[in-house]
Amino acid sequence: MAASTSISRTIYTGAFVHSISLAKLDICENGVIGVDENGIIAFVEKELDLEAAQEKHSWQDATSVRLSGNAFFFPGFIDTHTHAPQHPNTGLFGKTTLLDWLQTYTFPMESSFSDLKRAETIYRNFVSRTLSHGTTTAAYYATIHVPATNLLADICLARGQRALVGRVCMNSELSPDYYRDTSVSQSLAASKASIDYIRSIDPKGSIVRPVVTPRFAPSCTSEMLSAIGQLAKDEDAYIQTHISENKGEIALVQELFPESKSYTDVYDTANILTSKTILAHAIHLSHDERRTILARGSSISHCPCSNTAITSGCAPIRELLDEGHTIGLGTDVSGGFHPSILENVRNAIWTSRHLSMQSELGDKAKLSTEEALYLATRGGAAVVGLSDKVGAFEVGMEFDAQIIDLGNVESGGSNDGQFDFGPVDMFGWESWADKVEKWVYSGDDRNTTAVWVRGRLVHKTLRYQKLQCNGAATP
Amino acid sequence: MAASTSISRTIYTGAFVHSISLAKLDICENGVIGVDENGIIAFVEKELDLEAAQEKHSWQDATSVRLSGNAFFFPGFIDTHTHAPQHPNTGLFGKTTLLDWLQTYTFPMESSFSDLKRAETIYRNFVSRTLSHGTTTAAYYATIHVPATNLLADICLARGQRALVGRVCMNSELSPDYYRDTSVSQSLAASKASIDYIRSIDPKGSIVRPVVTPRFAPSCTSEMLSAIGQLAKDEDAYIQTHISENKGEIALVQELFPESKSYTDVYDTANILTSKTILAHAIHLSHDERRTILARGSSISHCPCSNTAITSGCAPIRELLDEGHTIGLGTDVSGGFHPSILENVRNAIWTSRHLSMQSELGDKAKLSTEEALYLATRGGAAVVGLSDKVGAFEVGMEFDAQIIDLGNVESGGSNDGQFDFGPVDMFGWESWADKVEKWVYSGDDRNTTAVWVRGRLVHKTLRYQKLQCNGAATP
Repeated sequence: MAASTSISRTIYTGAFVHSISLAKLDICENGVIGVDENGIIAFVEKELDLEAAQEKHSWQDATSVRLSGNAFFFPGFIDTHTHAPQHPNTGLFGKTTLLDWLQTYTFPMESSFSDLKRAETIYRNFVSRTLSHGTTTAAYYATIHVPATNLLADICLARGQRALVGRVCMNSELSPDYYRDTSVSQSLAASKASIDYIRSIDPKGSIVRPVVTPRFAPSCTSEMLSAIGQLAKDEDAYIQTHISENKGEIALVQELFPESKSYTDVYDTANILTSKTILAHAIHLSHDERRTILARGSSISHCPCSNTAITSGCAPIRELLDEGHTIGLGTDVSGGFHPSILENVRNAIWTSRHLSMQSELGDKAKLSTEEALYLATRGGAAVVGLSDKVGAFEVGMEFDAQIIDLGNVESGGSNDGQFDFGPVDMFGWESWADKVEKWVYSGDDRNTTAVWVRGRLVHKTLRYQKLQCNGAATP
Repeated sequence: MAASTSISRTIYTGAFVHSISLAKLDICENGVIGVDENGIIAFVEKELDLEAAQEKHSWQDATSVRLSGNAFFFPGFIDTHTHAPQHPNTGLFGKTTLLDWLQTYTFPMESSFSDLKRAETIYRNFVSRTLSHGTTTAAYYATIHVPATNLLADICLARGQRALVGRVCMNSELSPDYYRDTSVSQSLAASKASIDYIRSIDPKGSIVRPVVTPRFAPSCTSEMLSAIGQLAKDEDAYIQTHISENKGEIALVQELFPESKSYTDVYDTANILTSKTILAHAIHLSHDERRTILARGSSISHCPCSNTAITSGCAPIRELLDEGHTIGLGTDVSGGFHPSILENVRNAIWTSRHLSMQSELGDKAKLSTEEALYLATRGGAAVVGLSDKVGAFEVGMEFDAQIIDLGNVESGGSNDGQFDFGPVDMFGWESWADKVEKWVYSGDDRNTTAVWVRGRLVHKTLRYQKLQCNGAATP
């Protein structure tokens, strides 16, 4: 299996940047990170050079990847909520909001995944896309189709991208005739089949894991939701769903579940809220609902690009963080208009600035660069149950990382507009803090020149390959 | 002079897209546009093929540029407000807002433009950057330095980018000792010298024109503002300045000009509000101020990226449009975090959605894709006084255009993440309306493969060069 391809001990030298807490980013200008044959970080040295580190750890025979210039290692991004089959709809939403958007764009696209050939093209392309944006872990919604869902898991495993992959459960009449589960028992059996398959191809769940995926409350009957809660418990599995995204949706939930106190209560009654539950959006929750979610230990996926694009609202992330919620970022393609977590880092900050402008919280509502990067890495790792494994460069963690290379402005400035290094302009006088800010606010996938998961190189640009040939970075 | 380099008659064939009104985008799937030796559009055919058009107009000898696939011609973008010397600060602002941002980032950077060598590197690079993003016309703030300001005009003329170039006037004590005009007379003389120089290198103002540039009210004394109003009148020149960007700034204006009724009144008293005046931001204006601006015929540059990044506010563009204001988009680098007008098209839409979510206007506040593209082209053209010349493909207009090439997903989907075509994924079933939406919401400079101003090719990517070699596009 590709995921277990053996790797050689490798030492990564150069600058690295990672979060050490929500508020604090650690920038190490000259670091040495040793990664063993299993992709686990064996040592992190901040005061030694390569040779001294090799000697100290008796790693003289290790391969090395060396960075210089305006390049640094950064932890891989974690996308805690995205819909792989909606990839071809990225950028298409017009003036719709959630409920008409589902009917207009989403259900017709997802239903086409009964065609496995079509599914293969789209899923292969999307996994390549998200890897190219530095996403080393993703929580994927698939569709209701078992073969296509299993194929997505195969592709993630083959490409080496960590993933939670979920067959979607949806049996209520909100979904069209042509795209829904026919009964609770059929839906459960299909989900179980997909869970079993995914566990068969990666028994330890090192790379791919199944996730129980009720689409959202309006798509499921009460009976379905309870059965799903039981399935997740029986399988000791993660659950992902949506909550409190849009005001019309919330009113619909009240109408469909008149006996429930709230949207949150619908899930809580069905035992859907566990410490392994990922709730996407969480925009309009009452304080009572927030307390319940916190008490159950469920976590939140903040999807700012989507929330702005389909006018769902501004999630009050500053308040949720202060209350102690576990939060990561989600691209929510294709409600979200971009598969990049970096784009969502920016938009998490912009959304917080809009909240700052419109609420009494003022400046207190603002997320800092550091905080948004934390959500994109360690926050996301906690959401998907990997906080001890990924999201930072610490001994014992697995090496999920990306090289961010910002290049530099050519002598005298470009005179022909061939910007091989991507969208950021580095003039040479920037501090390391400036470099990180320039990347966050103006960078894109062109700056992500190589990506590793568990020490395995899973994406590289031509630019990185050229550097390898020149000996600047030599795996 | 490079700007007058002769060109041969050229026929552009393929899809083209442009605004025909604020609400209406015209998508022509098979168009033929004839551009004469002066860069003027001689004919636009929507029903004829190349050969028939050549015959009809006796243009059999014309060169041709042919598009196919997911590519189309789009008018060049117009950036109605940006600060070229702040280019190296793009992405740097942290948690500052306008007044501390100026002192922390802006004044130190701008003051360094006394060094002409440094100015050359930065200006060359920035003009190349904005061209690569499809900006065919820009209204540039320079600095207080005449030599560097003149150099910026030289570079724009040499590269063939239409520009308004303004030496900044700022004589009040808000500006630091190390970076301000020393007196009204010195400031006026310097501005006059720059105006004269710019008019000497392009006497007809076909490419570069001077613009009188009082930084903003707090940077100028009353005497300075009145002198500037007179200078602009004497020179029959455009004026650009900022207005009502930030609440702290507005309070400061009230404090500095206690005899004035409003921020707008400060400018109106000094005869700064003319039909050739560009006012950047215009976020917090009262209804009275808006009426005054409308009565004077001054226009507005909407800078959504900047307004969100430094938390200035949300300009009520829907209301301003309904009132009849003339509005374009501005990147406002480096308050704005990106030199791309396309990024500002998106952010104009996002800002309008935030207004929609927080105000009673609801959906009425939303800008559509069509409206935002209009602001980026024809709206901007009106702001800079070029509405009869650029912003669309109409007979008699000059050909300022960009090729938008979206590429297509390779057969079976990418399996290695080498996305040569940029960030958009085209699967082959998209309608032309979908193509435009995908570009607007997920595209970037990689999709702008070639750019023309007045029929002169001023930017091309390697991808476009390769297509030329293959004969797919053959100038």
